[in-house]
Amino acid sequence: MQRSIATVSMSGTLIEKLTAIQAAGFDGIEIFENDLLYFDGSPADVRRIAADLGLEITLFQPFRDFEGVSGERLARNLERAKRKFDLMHELGTNRILVCSSASPDTIRDDALIADQLGALALAAQQAGVYAGYEALAWGRHVNSYRHAWRLVDAVNHPNLGLVLDSFHTLAIGDSVDEIAAIPGERIAFVQIADAPKLAMDVLEWSRHYRCFPGQGDFDLAGFTARVVEAGYTGPLSLEIFNDGFRAAPTATTAADGYRSLLLLEEQTRGAMKAAQAGGEARHAGGDAAVALFEPPAAPAHVGFQFLEFAVDDTARAHLADWLGKLGFRQTGRHRSKDVELFQHGDASIVLNAEADSFASAFFQQHGLSLCASAFRVNDARLAFQRAAGFGYAPFSGRVGPNERVLPAVQAPDGSLNYFVDETPDEPTLFEADFVLADRSANEAARGPIAGIDHVCLSLPAASLDTWVLFLRTAFGFEPEPGQLVPDPYGLVRSRALRSRDGSVRVALNASVDRHTAVAEALHTYRGSGLNHVAFHTADIFRAIPHFVARGLPLLKIPRNYYDDLAARYALPDQTIDALYENNILYDRDAQGGEFFHAYTELLDQRFSLEIVERRGGYDGYGAANAAVRLAAQAQQRRHAAR
Amino acid sequence: MQRSIATVSMSGTLIEKLTAIQAAGFDGIEIFENDLLYFDGSPADVRRIAADLGLEITLFQPFRDFEGVSGERLARNLERAKRKFDLMHELGTNRILVCSSASPDTIRDDALIADQLGALALAAQQAGVYAGYEALAWGRHVNSYRHAWRLVDAVNHPNLGLVLDSFHTLAIGDSVDEIAAIPGERIAFVQIADAPKLAMDVLEWSRHYRCFPGQGDFDLAGFTARVVEAGYTGPLSLEIFNDGFRAAPTATTAADGYRSLLLLEEQTRGAMKAAQAGGEARHAGGDAAVALFEPPAAPAHVGFQFLEFAVDDTARAHLADWLGKLGFRQTGRHRSKDVELFQHGDASIVLNAEADSFASAFFQQHGLSLCASAFRVNDARLAFQRAAGFGYAPFSGRVGPNERVLPAVQAPDGSLNYFVDETPDEPTLFEADFVLADRSANEAARGPIAGIDHVCLSLPAASLDTWVLFLRTAFGFEPEPGQLVPDPYGLVRSRALRSRDGSVRVALNASVDRHTAVAEALHTYRGSGLNHVAFHTADIFRAIPHFVARGLPLLKIPRNYYDDLAARYALPDQTIDALYENNILYDRDAQGGEFFHAYTELLDQRFSLEIVERRGGYDGYGAANAAVRLAAQAQQRRHAAR
Repeated sequence: MQRSIATVSMSGTLIEKLTAIQAAGFDGIEIFENDLLYFDGSPADVRRIAADLGLEITLFQPFRDFEGVSGERLARNLERAKRKFDLMHELGTNRILVCSSASPDTIRDDALIADQLGALALAAQQAGVYAGYEALAWGRHVNSYRHAWRLVDAVNHPNLGLVLDSFHTLAIGDSVDEIAAIPGERIAFVQIADAPKLAMDVLEWSRHYRCFPGQGDFDLAGFTARVVEAGYTGPLSLEIFNDGFRAAPTATTAADGYRSLLLLEEQTRGAMKAAQAGGEARHAGGDAAVALFEPPAAPAHVGFQFLEFAVDDTARAHLADWLGKLGFRQTGRHRSKDVELFQHGDASIVLNAEADSFASAFFQQHGLSLCASAFRVNDARLAFQRAAGFGYAPFSGRVGPNERVLPAVQAPDGSLNYFVDETPDEPTLFEADFVLADRSANEAARGPIAGIDHVCLSLPAASLDTWVLFLRTAFGFEPEPGQLVPDPYGLVRSRALRSRDGSVRVALNASVDRHTAVAEALHTYRGSGLNHVAFHTADIFRAIPHFVARGLPLLKIPRNYYDDLAARYALPDQTIDALYENNILYDRDAQGGEFFHAYTELLDQRFSLEIVERRGGYDGYGAANAAVRLAAQAQQRRHAAR
Repeated sequence: MQRSIATVSMSGTLIEKLTAIQAAGFDGIEIFENDLLYFDGSPADVRRIAADLGLEITLFQPFRDFEGVSGERLARNLERAKRKFDLMHELGTNRILVCSSASPDTIRDDALIADQLGALALAAQQAGVYAGYEALAWGRHVNSYRHAWRLVDAVNHPNLGLVLDSFHTLAIGDSVDEIAAIPGERIAFVQIADAPKLAMDVLEWSRHYRCFPGQGDFDLAGFTARVVEAGYTGPLSLEIFNDGFRAAPTATTAADGYRSLLLLEEQTRGAMKAAQAGGEARHAGGDAAVALFEPPAAPAHVGFQFLEFAVDDTARAHLADWLGKLGFRQTGRHRSKDVELFQHGDASIVLNAEADSFASAFFQQHGLSLCASAFRVNDARLAFQRAAGFGYAPFSGRVGPNERVLPAVQAPDGSLNYFVDETPDEPTLFEADFVLADRSANEAARGPIAGIDHVCLSLPAASLDTWVLFLRTAFGFEPEPGQLVPDPYGLVRSRALRSRDGSVRVALNASVDRHTAVAEALHTYRGSGLNHVAFHTADIFRAIPHFVARGLPLLKIPRNYYDDLAARYALPDQTIDALYENNILYDRDAQGGEFFHAYTELLDQRFSLEIVERRGGYDGYGAANAAVRLAAQAQQRRHAAR
């Protein structure tokens, strides 16, 4: 399908927007009127610039408050429309969006409105253009696509069609089922927007909180599947009013928008197949009349292969010391590079101090930091092809003789994401690349850590949605609802994603404010960085004393927290005391699942290590305890600053 | 009345909060439970620290989801309450807030709830504490103070009272009238919060958008007047959940909170007088049982006396050149300082280059900037006393022989605000302080500018509310509704205030994002600064060509803007052409009032001068044109950056 985006969806001047839109891969744009008004050049200039970039102007918009008016007002509105039709000729587009009137004095009379839309269709015909009528969710009289369609159908004129917008339909909880029955050629245009589910006025919600498909909570695939089933073959066009996007880097926003459309096409294909399989397809004939993006399926994940830190000698010593206190043992040394492997249970940590490498460049920019994550998947080549197909930059580093070539893409912060698979009867990755220590000694020394539970990253506020899209598109991860967490010095937005099998979990933290722990860590990282790595254990009450005895410095949790736990939950006094003594935080879900977790102090003022135990199917991350942890970390930072 | 604030209302650790609250002048605090949980010390430590600071702990809160439960759950909840009562003894407070249950499984049975609240009252009595029952606006069964009062009244126990919270009452549009009929001694506690009127879910609204009295849209004086009429003599306590305050400097927030209570007390006094005058007072006896703050009344303003810029020689030459192009003439030189006076119509501009002065220090910090504003008032001494009474720092500079001593306070950005009055038969301020040029030459040279229309300031995002409170408390200005304006690189919040007579208007701009014109100007100012000064004229179509002929560089507005004006308004083509040729922006209000305004280019990449003409009672600031202006300024900045 033609992939289009409205200029209002991103920041910058009109020229900056067009350039970024073209670079992202789109072939169409909607010109939002304000962008034209503020442009210091003629509409013909815009036409020429867009043509030079290979961008078709798919739509001009919006035209407001046309219908349901007095006869005198109708004449004025037709005059206004004709001026815009003239402008459209200069601009080189023949489609205009007319949104249902939101004026308080709209006359609520369908027959009158149909007459007036008929007059508009006639004027459009005379000007050689097409008008598309869209129901705004807050339209005064017309606020559903079904109502708008009845009017458009009643007018029955070739120069008047229906405009569908996923937000206006899904925000009011309208059913999408009847879309498939609308003749595709009568649908003038389709606009796509996602949004988080928010309990607020629909107009404010629409103007400030729309987001790209995959970043919000709407079933856009279901919506788009019905559009395709209707036989619509025009553009799918993103129209996103988002306060964050208004201030974010233009090129990144455009690139994310394009990826989000690709993801939507893949999901739409799935939704259509599901409908066909269920015998629900509204349209005979099976395959869609349009081509939809079809990447390799998201890989089945089987867990973290390793986490790789960029270090220098000092940082390596520091981190290796803490890993040792956690019971990790150095189990390998890279065959050709200054890289060491530490393992405990199924958790593998790589410390990379190789000079003149990606890791050393990363270290120079960010200091001690997570420079790569490797994921074990069923088919690494296909997983890589999928990620690259969504436009994430491939990466290849130096490879020594007989060492494994790992396909990788760069994450939004420039760190690497490797895909690793294993072939039976061939050396494993670690066997191929590392000189390994004696395995039996390792097995004998098994400690309480079973593996990596999750990784949490600290991100700049503007890049949270970019990361959500990265993990959804490239990895096929599923997002969980967002959380807002108080730090003593501001708020932190948090959102977790996981692989379908739950074996890989990534939590994202982005600070709303400038002086939270998350924001200050970002500052030391000069960019994004690790917030914490969580290791899981089957017995946290055994593990923690073990680690503390070895000297691991735990984040101290105030006694008052435990007194409140005692009031909230019917926990035995000895459990409360054991939690307090070990600085273990506690959470319980509605089904009685329990979460026990403890944090180390901040390492290098940047990140911490977490030990978690899940019982009874607890599936979250202890969000209820984030505030007490952030307050304790602030306390630690204040002590360190003295 | 006792002035109290909840610890949740500001950022920081508990100790930082207590210190700031004491310094601001409060004598009471509510301990919000989370602040205690995160505190690394015992409740007894908090008691001691608060006592050392002279702060009474007026309340411990919140206790949630107590009532409307099964018998088994009631026993657990009573156990939970008893633990909190123990904690209150350690903390040294005897009052706890119990908010109405928001749990979905609340049993909706008033008789049962009254029984259970009775059990709570008994437990409180046994523990020697008092429980206050508050209706949350989103309470599952009990969500109005009237309902809560019926229950409290039914229990009829001395250890159970009613808690009133202005937000919960006013957010649901409830009438405050019945408050005055509640016996004052049955009101356990009164919480105060203002909020902007927003169309959103009341819980989200309450948790993120509360603000101090005077910063929002609620009639808090009406609410508080009824509370005082009821005979309540306990604390008025601010409880503000505000995302901005969570990240703002703790001391500033606390100081603003204290001022906002003083303002509320003044307004409450007014509301009570008004009710008495109208015969509406619910309580016989006239004067309130409590003392309410009574500052000198807000001054009657009669306009801007002068605006004073901090300059060096280069900046003076630059600004004097532009003022000359606007038809200003140098009309005076200060008797003892390196200060010059420029005038045109009623507009007076002072350029201050005096070495080793406040102005030179201001220039060193901020560069070419507005360092002082002088307001003509009916009584300068009383105006100053009022401002100082609200806690704004007085300022005195050096004064030469026979020069006038001007009372002044420092604004939130450190600039000065002078109050000036005139005594008949005595020299005017300018006559006293300046050697003035021949007045007749001045009169003969009168140009098209009549005076100063308004001043617009650029502020850091966190200080917009601080400024609103400054202008309301110290000056008695009235705020207008806020606006959100798009810049090409983000959003700008804008709010205007004016003196009651409309002779002084100040608009405040604060950038939500980091790369708007407003944010970048703040960066060059290193703090707050002037956005623009608007001068009014009676004939903008005569004025602009006059200024342009003298070489004033106007901000260029794109032709497309005018083509859209032509489509939107039935303006004659020659008017459109004249607007375009003169780069004049146009707005029209619902009553047909018209606004014509043009901007200069940015001076020193910081601020601009605006020429405005108001016709037919137009009373706004052309907010509809802010976006095109910001886009044109962005264009100019891009050109300058090349």
